[in-house]
This record gives sequence, structure tokens and C-alpha cells, in this order.
Amino acid sequence: MKVAVVGANGQIGKHLIDLLHNSEDYKPMAIVRKEEQVQSFKDEGIAASLVDLEGSVEQIAEGLKDADAVVFTAGSGGSTGSDKTLLVDLDGAVKTMEAAKQIDIDRFIIVSALQAHHRENWNDSLLPYYAAKHYADKELERSGLTYTIIRPGGLLNEAGTGKVSAAENLSRGSIPREDVARAIFASLTEKKTYNRGFDLISGNNPIEEAVKEI
Amino acid sequence: MKVAVVGANGQIGKHLIDLLHNSEDYKPMAIVRKEEQVQSFKDEGIAASLVDLEGSVEQIAEGLKDADAVVFTAGSGGSTGSDKTLLVDLDGAVKTMEAAKQIDIDRFIIVSALQAHHRENWNDSLLPYYAAKHYADKELERSGLTYTIIRPGGLLNEAGTGKVSAAENLSRGSIPREDVARAIFASLTEKKTYNRGFDLISGNNPIEEAVKEI
Repeated sequence: MKVAVVGANGQIGKHLIDLLHNSEDYKPMAIVRKEEQVQSFKDEGIAASLVDLEGSVEQIAEGLKDADAVVFTAGSGGSTGSDKTLLVDLDGAVKTMEAAKQIDIDRFIIVSALQAHHRENWNDSLLPYYAAKHYADKELERSGLTYTIIRPGGLLNEAGTGKVSAAENLSRGSIPREDVARAIFASLTEKKTYNRGFDLISGNNPIEEAVKEI
Repeated sequence: MKVAVVGANGQIGKHLIDLLHNSEDYKPMAIVRKEEQVQSFKDEGIAASLVDLEGSVEQIAEGLKDADAVVFTAGSGGSTGSDKTLLVDLDGAVKTMEAAKQIDIDRFIIVSALQAHHRENWNDSLLPYYAAKHYADKELERSGLTYTIIRPGGLLNEAGTGKVSAAENLSRGSIPREDVARAIFASLTEKKTYNRGFDLISGNNPIEEAVKEI
């Protein structure tokens, strides 16, 4: 099963690429936005292609070609303005969904943000980001794709613990990016996560069990 | 029929309030964001209420109380950043839809932008604005409200001509704000515009005929 990781050069993306690359069941395809990133993945023996999320649906579809599943974990990042939040985190995500449908990829996982589905719980200092996530998630729910929306709490760069809490609604919390990548990996073919969304923070349950029990 | 005009202090809003105020069939409710604007409308004998589109759905619903229809013509404007484009033009519009549904207002007209439904035709210099409009319009289409999406071309402040071109898809063009207000007014109870969207630019057809023929 070939998994296209959109945003493969991000921290979650890199962890996920490693997990896929080291497994027997999956092959990763790194989808990145810079030529040197493509080369860097290829140097490690990982398939990679260049995609501009501000480009057309057709261009994105070309980059996703041959994938069996798509993980969208790209983000415009904190250093760009809200214009990019709108054009990458929202419109880029939706164009990626449209591209997946266009080339008959059915499985789609998106990395969202804790409580993005409940406006009253959005983080006051990140409202535009939460709004972009909220509407991208709503579009995915209606896309007809077999989706999973993973909504992690505050992202940490420390090593993962392998233990999380996953549920439809959780209070604010944090989670290492490595554990988010593991939760994505565990969700890929876990039917319990199909057409569902869940909040995800550090907790007490082994990741594979946690995603089965949402 | 009471028509709540969200963004009544804008140029299109002011023209529309005048049309409603001078008609026998309608009563306008000016929905504005500053206390002095409320007072200014009340001084002219026009019902007005204060609504912050960055507030909650419940607060917006309180402001729309007693209306039979809602026209959303608010915009964050060119002088604010894309954060407000996301939070007002997109999320503010969708919260207004949710507020309308919450208090059983069924009729909802939104002012969008020419070709907002076709990404490849978005104005390159206004991409975040077009993206916000695109997703607000998509949410409205799925809201269950009896909607009309009016997508005007480049907005002019000159006097209206009363003649327009209205269709599902039109090439780039412009239109006086006064004529947009007249097209909204003509659409309010025109069933041909129910659950439809149309592009609108200056043209050769009298406005009332044009909206009947879309």
C-alpha cells in the first residue's frame, strides 16, 4: 500500500515517512514543496515528488499518482500570514481531496487540531488557523472519501511515549509529534477510524489500542 | 417581510436599506458592528442592531431576531489582514447561516464574488478573499436554507444603470454597487433565484427580468 504523505518534510511527516519506510506493509511517497527536499528523500531511497499546494488540482493529482492513500499533514506554518493559512491549510487541503477523488484514491487522513470541530473551544491566539482547519475538516467529511480526521493537542518535539488518549472530545492537552505520526500509521487500515474524527493527546493507552477504541 | 441586512453600513448595504425602507413590502433591519452606526440608522427611523461577526452564533442569532430573511453583505474590507478574511468573510458568514437556522429564518442571500465557484478564475491579487467566499458559498449550499448566492464583478461606486447581465457563468466585468443592491432586492422573493447562484455584471437587461431569467 503506497501512502502519499503531503507535508513529508514537516516534523510529523518525517516521523510518518520513517514508520512507513520501515514497515513491510507500506511504501511511503514523500510529497514536498522544494526540489532539494525531493532529492533528500530520494537519496534515502524514498519515492518523492514536488507538489505546490497553491497549484491546480490537476498538478496535485499528478504528484499523488499511484498512491493508495493520502495523509495531509502540510501546514503553512507559524511564520507566514493568514493568507497562506487560507490558501494552504484550507484551500490546499481541499484541492488535495479533490485530486485524490480525481484519481480514485479513496483513503484520506488529515491532521487537524484539538476541538477544531467546536468553535467555542478554539485557541484564542490561533483563531484563523482553527477556522481553516474547521472548514477543511467539514469539506473532508462531505467529500465521499474514506476519511479520518486526527485532531492533536499542542504539538511537542520531544520523543513519543507510545501512549495516548483518543476520543471524540478531549480537554486541552499536548502530544509529541512522534506519537501523532504513530496514530496516523495505526489508523491507516484500522476500520474503526474510517469516516470518523477524534481528538488526540498524550495519555495512558497504547496507540494501536486507543485508535481501535474511539 | 423583515429583512436583516448584515453589513448595512457598507455601500451595498446602504443602498439595499434604502430600497427596503422605501418599499411597501419590506422592512429593513440594519445589522452593524458599531454603536454609532446603530444610532445613525435609528435616527432615520430604521430598526438596527449591533452584531459582532466574531462573536458567537447565539449572539448573532439575538441580533437577527424577528427577521424573515437575511442578506449577508458584510466584508472585512481591503484594509484588514487575511486573518479577518477568514474570521469575518468565511466564519462570520457561516455563523450567520447557523444563527438563521437556529431561529428558523429560512431565506438567506449572500453577496459573493464573480466566479468564486471556479478556482481557476479567481482574481490573482485577491486569492484569500476568493477562497473565503468560495467556502462560505459551499457551506450555504449545504445549509438547508433557501439560499441565493449573488456573485458580482468588480464593484463600482458610480450610480446604477438598472441594467445587468446575470448568469451561472460570466466573463470578468464590473457593476455599480447600487445595481448589486437592486439585484438583491429583486431576488428576495423571486423563486427563480432560490437555491441558485449567479454571476452579475453590468449589461443590457433590466434587473428584475435578469434575475427571473437566470
